[in-house]
Formats: sequence, C-alpha cells, structure tokens
Amino acid sequence: MDFRKYCAEAVGTFWLTFAGCGSAVIAAAFPQVGIGLLGVALAFGLTVLTMAYSIGHISGCHLNPAVTLGLAAGGRFPAKDILPYIVAQVIGAIVASAVLYLIASGSAEFSLAKGFAANGYGEHSPGGYSLMSCLLAEVVLTMMFLFIIMGATHGKAPVGFAPIAIGLGLTLIHLVGIPITNTSVNPARSTGPALFVGGWALGQLWLFWVAPLLGGVLGGLFYRWISEEPAAMVTGMPKAPAH
Amino acid sequence: MDFRKYCAEAVGTFWLTFAGCGSAVIAAAFPQVGIGLLGVALAFGLTVLTMAYSIGHISGCHLNPAVTLGLAAGGRFPAKDILPYIVAQVIGAIVASAVLYLIASGSAEFSLAKGFAANGYGEHSPGGYSLMSCLLAEVVLTMMFLFIIMGATHGKAPVGFAPIAIGLGLTLIHLVGIPITNTSVNPARSTGPALFVGGWALGQLWLFWVAPLLGGVLGGLFYRWISEEPAAMVTGMPKAPAH
Amino acid sequence: MDFRKYCAEAVGTFWLTFAGCGSAVIAAAFPQVGIGLLGVALAFGLTVLTMAYSIGHISGCHLNPAVTLGLAAGGRFPAKDILPYIVAQVIGAIVASAVLYLIASGSAEFSLAKGFAANGYGEHSPGGYSLMSCLLAEVVLTMMFLFIIMGATHGKAPVGFAPIAIGLGLTLIHLVGIPITNTSVNPARSTGPALFVGGWALGQLWLFWVAPLLGGVLGGLFYRWISEEPAAMVTGMPKAPAH
Amino acid sequence: MDFRKYCAEAVGTFWLTFAGCGSAVIAAAFPQVGIGLLGVALAFGLTVLTMAYSIGHISGCHLNPAVTLGLAAGGRFPAKDILPYIVAQVIGAIVASAVLYLIASGSAEFSLAKGFAANGYGEHSPGGYSLMSCLLAEVVLTMMFLFIIMGATHGKAPVGFAPIAIGLGLTLIHLVGIPITNTSVNPARSTGPALFVGGWALGQLWLFWVAPLLGGVLGGLFYRWISEEPAAMVTGMPKAPAH
Repeated sequence: MDFRKYCAEAVGTFWLTFAGCGSAVIAAAFPQVGIGLLGVALAFGLTVLTMAYSIGHISGCHLNPAVTLGLAAGGRFPAKDILPYIVAQVIGAIVASAVLYLIASGSAEFSLAKGFAANGYGEHSPGGYSLMSCLLAEVVLTMMFLFIIMGATHGKAPVGFAPIAIGLGLTLIHLVGIPITNTSVNPARSTGPALFVGGWALGQLWLFWVAPLLGGVLGGLFYRWISEEPAAMVTGMPKAPAH
Repeated sequence: MDFRKYCAEAVGTFWLTFAGCGSAVIAAAFPQVGIGLLGVALAFGLTVLTMAYSIGHISGCHLNPAVTLGLAAGGRFPAKDILPYIVAQVIGAIVASAVLYLIASGSAEFSLAKGFAANGYGEHSPGGYSLMSCLLAEVVLTMMFLFIIMGATHGKAPVGFAPIAIGLGLTLIHLVGIPITNTSVNPARSTGPALFVGGWALGQLWLFWVAPLLGGVLGGLFYRWISEEPAAMVTGMPKAPAH
Repeated sequence: MDFRKYCAEAVGTFWLTFAGCGSAVIAAAFPQVGIGLLGVALAFGLTVLTMAYSIGHISGCHLNPAVTLGLAAGGRFPAKDILPYIVAQVIGAIVASAVLYLIASGSAEFSLAKGFAANGYGEHSPGGYSLMSCLLAEVVLTMMFLFIIMGATHGKAPVGFAPIAIGLGLTLIHLVGIPITNTSVNPARSTGPALFVGGWALGQLWLFWVAPLLGGVLGGLFYRWISEEPAAMVTGMPKAPAH
Repeated sequence: MDFRKYCAEAVGTFWLTFAGCGSAVIAAAFPQVGIGLLGVALAFGLTVLTMAYSIGHISGCHLNPAVTLGLAAGGRFPAKDILPYIVAQVIGAIVASAVLYLIASGSAEFSLAKGFAANGYGEHSPGGYSLMSCLLAEVVLTMMFLFIIMGATHGKAPVGFAPIAIGLGLTLIHLVGIPITNTSVNPARSTGPALFVGGWALGQLWLFWVAPLLGGVLGGLFYRWISEEPAAMVTGMPKAPAH
C-alpha cells in the first residue's frame, strides 16, 4: 500500500538526518575522544546501509530527493511517485531535526550558532571553500553517488550487496566532502537543519537543492548510457514495489 | 535444547558487555593512540555482528532484553521465552563485568571512579545531558534499533546480511549516543557495570531498563505495522528455533 | 561494447583518484577533527568497493594498470585489452586530478606545495623512507594485492564478496603504506597528481610504474601457481566480459 | 596438494604479521594523522578477512597455531595436519618480520627499542597490565575468537560471510587487547617480532604460546558443546580440503 511506502521513506530519511547530523552535532568534537569527521562519515553511510536492509523491500529506500529524481532519470523509478517520495523525505528530515534539537539542547554546551550540521558554502563552508568549488563538489559527488546506486542495483550485480556498496559509498562521499560543504548530496537532509538555523543556512539552501538534483540526474543518465540499459530494465533491490 | 539456547544468549551478552565496555575502559582514552568513541562504537557493533553469525542459528542472538521484548511485541518471539532469555542475558553481562574488572584492575591506571563504562544521565551523562534528553535519546535509539532488526530479518530482506545491518546499526547508535548516556539501548549491558560502580550508577539504572524496553516495544510494533506483517510471519535469521 | 568498457575503467579510476586523493588533500589534516591516514585508507578502499559492485559486470573494475597486467600474468585477462585498459585508467586519473584541483583550489588553505597526494620516496616519502624501502614496500604490497584479487575472484571463493575483500584489502595496504610512499600500488593513481605537482613528483614517478607493475605480475603468477590454476580457468567477478 | 596448502598458510600468516605489525610499527603513531590503535585493530582484522576470501578454499586460512589447535579440539581439523600447519605459520611470521624490518629500518625514525610490535606483559605491557591480567585476557580473547570461528563456519551459518565475522572479530579483539599485551591471540604472530627484538620479548614469549593455545582449545570445545556438534560434522569455509 502506497501510504506505508511513503511512511517508510519518511522514517528512513528521519534516521539519515537524525543519526547522521546527530553524530556531527553531539559526538564529532567531543573533547579528546570525539569521533571526528571520520566518525560522522561512517554514521551517514550506516544510516543508509541499515535502512536499505530494513525498508529496501518496502520503498526502495531512496531517503533523498536526488536519488529519487536520479533513479527516475535512469529509467528505474516511475514519474508519478517522484513528488510524494520527495515530500515524505523532507517531512522525515524536518522531524529528525526537531527531535535532534530536543535532545541536543539538553546539554549546556549546545548552541545553534555552532551550525547544527547545516550545509554551507563560501564563508559558511567548514574549510572556507568558494561557491564554485562547493557547487562543483556537490554535483560531482551526487553524480557518482547515483552512478554507484544504479550500478550496485543493476540486475547483473551480486544480489544483496547493494546496501553495503551504497551505504559505504555515502561514507566515502563524506570523507571527501565534509570540509567543503559539510556534505549534502541530499536536499532533504539539508533542509531539516537549515530550518532550525535560519538566516544564512536558509539563504544558502538553494545550492543544496540545485546541485544534488542536477548531479543525481546526470549520474542516472550516465550509468544508463554506460550499461546500455533499456528504459524498463528489471533491477535489483532499490526498485520501488510494483504498482 | 533450551538450556544450550539460554547459554548461547549468556555467552553472547557476555561478549557484548566484555568487549564493548572493555574497549571503553581499556582502550578509548589510551594516551595519544587511543581508539576514542569511534573505536568503542565499532567495538559494540562488532560484538553483535560476530555473535549473530556464530549463535544466530542457536538462539537468534538477541543479547539484549529490549530486543527480546521488542521482537515479542513485533510478533517474532514467543512470550514464554522472554523471561529465561532476559535472565540469561543479565547473567552474561554480570559475568562479563566481573572478568573485565579482574583484567582491568591489573593496571595501576584503573579506577572504578572513572565510570567503568556505566550508563548515566544528568551529572553522570558524559556530555552533561539532562534526564529528559537522555530518556528521549534512549527511547528513539532503541526504537530505531528494533526497526532495523525487524526489517533486516524480514523474509523479504536479503538472506545472510542481517548481522551486518544489525551490528553496524548498533555501531551507528553509539556514534550518536555515547556523549549522551554512554549509550545503553540494552538493560543487561547497563546492569553489569552498574553493579560494580554502585552508588549513582545503581540509582540511575532504572532509566536504562525503562527507556530501552519502551523503545524496543515501540520499534517492534511500528515495523510490524509498516510492513503489514501478520503475527506469525516466517522470518529470517534472528528467529528463535522452533519449540 | 568495448568503448563502454573502456569508459567504465576511466570512470572507475577517476573515482579512485578523485575520492582517494581528495580525502587526503581535503580532509586528512582538517584541524582537530580531520580523518587522518585511517580515513584516507578507508576512502581509497571504498572507491574500489563501490566501483566493483557498480561496474564489475561491465569491465571487471581493474582501475589500475598493475591489476590489469597482474591479471593477465595470472591468466585471467586477454593480452589484447591490456593497452586500452591502461590508457583509459590513466586518462581517468588525470581528469580526476584536474577536477580535484579545481575544487581544492577554491580554499585559501590549498597549496600544491603540500604535495597534492603525490607519491614519493626518499626526501619526498612522508616518513622519510629510503628508495630501497619504498621500492620493496610497493613491490610487496602490490604483489599481495594481486594475490588477494586473484583469490577472492577465484571460482571456488564465495560469490559476490570479492569487492569487499579487494576494497578492504586496498584499505589495509594504505594502513601500512602511506607513511612510506603515500601508497601507490597503482601507476595511474600516481600519474594524475604527479602531472599537477611536476618537478620532483614527475622525477620520482618511474618508481610508481616499475614497482607496482612488477609486484602485480609476481602476485598474479604466484597465486596462479598456488591454486594450481590452468590458464583459461573460469573465474568470478573481476573477469572482463567475453569478447 | 599438501605442499601448496602449507604454502598458503605461510603466505597468509606472512600477510597477517607483515601488514598487522607493519601498520603498528609504521603508521600507528605517525605525527598528527597517525592511524592509532583503531587503525592497527582494523589492519589485523583485514589481514584475516582478505586472506580468508583468497585462500580459504585452499587451506582453510587458519594463519594461527591457536586456531589450528582449537579447530582440532572442536572436531573440525585432522590431527595429522596440526604440526605442518603450525610450522608453516611460524615460518610465514618470521619472514614477515624480516621483510618488515628491511622496510621499516629505511626510516631514520625506526628503532627496535620502540618494540617492533612485540607482545609483552608486566613492564612490557603497553598499559602496564600485570602478568595475571595479560594471561587472563589472552585466554578469554582467544577462547572467544575460536567460538566465533567455530560458529561462523558452522553448517547452519549463512554461507560466505565467515571471513567478515572472523576478520572483524579479530579487529574487535584488538580494540580491547592492544593496551594489555599488544594483543597476541596468535603464537606465530608473537614469535616473528620477538626474534628481532630479542631479550625481554623472547623471555616473555612463552605466555603468547601458552595462553592462546589454551584459550583456543577451550573455545573449540565450548562451541562444540553448545552447538551439540558431532565430531565429524560437515562445516563451511575454514575447513581444510579433504585428504
């Protein structure tokens, strides 16, 4: 039933945003024994790995508007479900940010001014990367993310391993991208924290919709070309259930 | 035979508590090259991953009263085995704490006053998180843990991968939760160290039974709803052997 | 079609070089929360893991002239495809370095003088290792890399797991080798950054062609002997599609 | 053929000792970006994971006299092959230490006086743990290692995943044990470096033969009891080929 499918996307995106951003806000810079950017990168990837095994058979486990649009461009997802998937994902990410805010604000160390894991460019890039660098990085990283997703769920790829490839692929993307933009590659994940931080974060949010969606479409089309894939190919796990 | 099954739960929970808490007590803050919270998070997850492959076919490898109760709520575990499983798990965790105490106290640096990896809230939260934050975090994290377990062992999930999803899911939960409560999501794991630390740790132990058990039941029920699962569904690995 | 196969090798080697070297250039030494050599080692390994699941069924996913030559020596790859594979790999690595340069130079902290993840020996070895140490390390590490690749894709090895063994094998190789040479074991990966750094990096590049190619051939031959493998054995994933 | 099987054990134990100890000697304490004990723990585990996929079908991939003896005690390995396996493993470890010495001594920073990753107790325990703590830790950790190996290769465990469970199990064991003894659980791995360090390392070597062998036998017997396993049970991967 479609409603449960949308709920699964909302829960999964809740988990991605809550645990991914939560690891950054709560544990990355914990004194002396903090998990650092490596721990945050691992956390984001494991949100996808865990959910892909848990709800992959329900909704395909996109958890990301760029994935949904990219899979549609790649001929793997029906156009009519794009909008409800994206709405569910954004709702999940906003609820995640609210719950994270409730928990994190229970510590005297907490301050929204530290960024709340929002994505940014230019003066709000963690490493001070320019707008053009951030735009290029988000497009390239999302394109390669979709390339990995399309490939690992291809009918000729080994069955059952896609969640490992895709989850650890997201970890890899964060190992490169956090100093640049805090790593988005996911407009829903970017929207949640931005609503709580407001100001600059909302003002820069456009980039984290435009670049991932563009990269996602490019990745979907590119893999479809390279694998000589017909439009209606039967695929592996992250396919949405038949309607 | 049931006795061996209960023994397997005791051994598995011994391993979870001994190696998980052991990594925290012995290696997390080792000078200069310590494993930090990232290493502890990995250790807890790997205890479950290794045991799930080793005793999953014997007992289902719960290692955690919240998992046992949550799976029962989710229609995956018979009510009559709840109590013996929980008793076995608590015994395993207590023995683990005793063996860890014997080993760790062989170093001049050791002191129970450093916490012995016991869980705590408020002034005993590693990051000073309030009771409400700790309660909410433990409920949400345990709920999502059960959601992952129910999903990864669902009949439609890829066969054989559940220990990876569940083990690394516990790693992820620790990546977020250690600064908050030292991460419980498991009343047995909390009980072992608390008996050795005594005082405040015993006084705060109630939270680490109430919150994980509540979260576990919520997660079991929620996944059962979202997957439209009938009560007696045939499931994958972490199912208890037939009686 | 062959052209798509060569494109897949170019894209995969792009990803290995862009994300592997990118993690080193951008995130390894980020203040306080940097990913360190452990994060870089994980990144290199995950580039191979993700690509092996995505394009393994297209090109065999070598991404490395030493792998291509070593598999040919091991009787697993046709001689006529060696040259186009190596050309595609080198092109991918050079494009990766260009894109990485564009992104990384958008930060005021960036400087090619910091090394741009180029490989080096002697005074350009990160830990000051001598030419002989660097040569020996690259030969031994590449030989064992091919030994792992040949074994994990052997017809008797479990199906579908080769990308995990090979990807994490490359992580392991980096855990040992970065202080010695920055770890090459891959002439294409070495060529990309060297072209941008110029000077000493180009002058030392010969070692990172000679040693990995020699090690790769030794590893391919050695595994072929130890497994008593006939020349035309049917193998698992990293086999190129039939022509 | 038996000779190739013994060679495989030698190569595998070479890799375990070379890359495991190598990561510790070369990369653990590298300034600022060193991999730390977490990286060393990962390295040791990945040596086993990579070799188990590569030579598991040739020799069973023990790489460790305690594993060989423990599997024999567990009814999974023929007594007549115990001695040649152990000889091959020790040879592999000694060659590994020699090659590591050649490479590592090419840096001006290198000194055997830093320990060369040899195992020790008392004043030579990294964290100053007493002989009794070290003995108990090595017995318990090796016992659980064999418990994991016996379980993950049991006929009812999922096929193909044993190398992941066993390799990451060894990582977990190192996450706990490095501060105590530098972690042995493997007499061959202990013997290689001790021969180069000499003096105290040779004098303490007895513990790293006695404790792992004792723990290994206990683990093999214990799992055999808990799984109600008959002596000649058909098992999964780490079984030696039929004779």
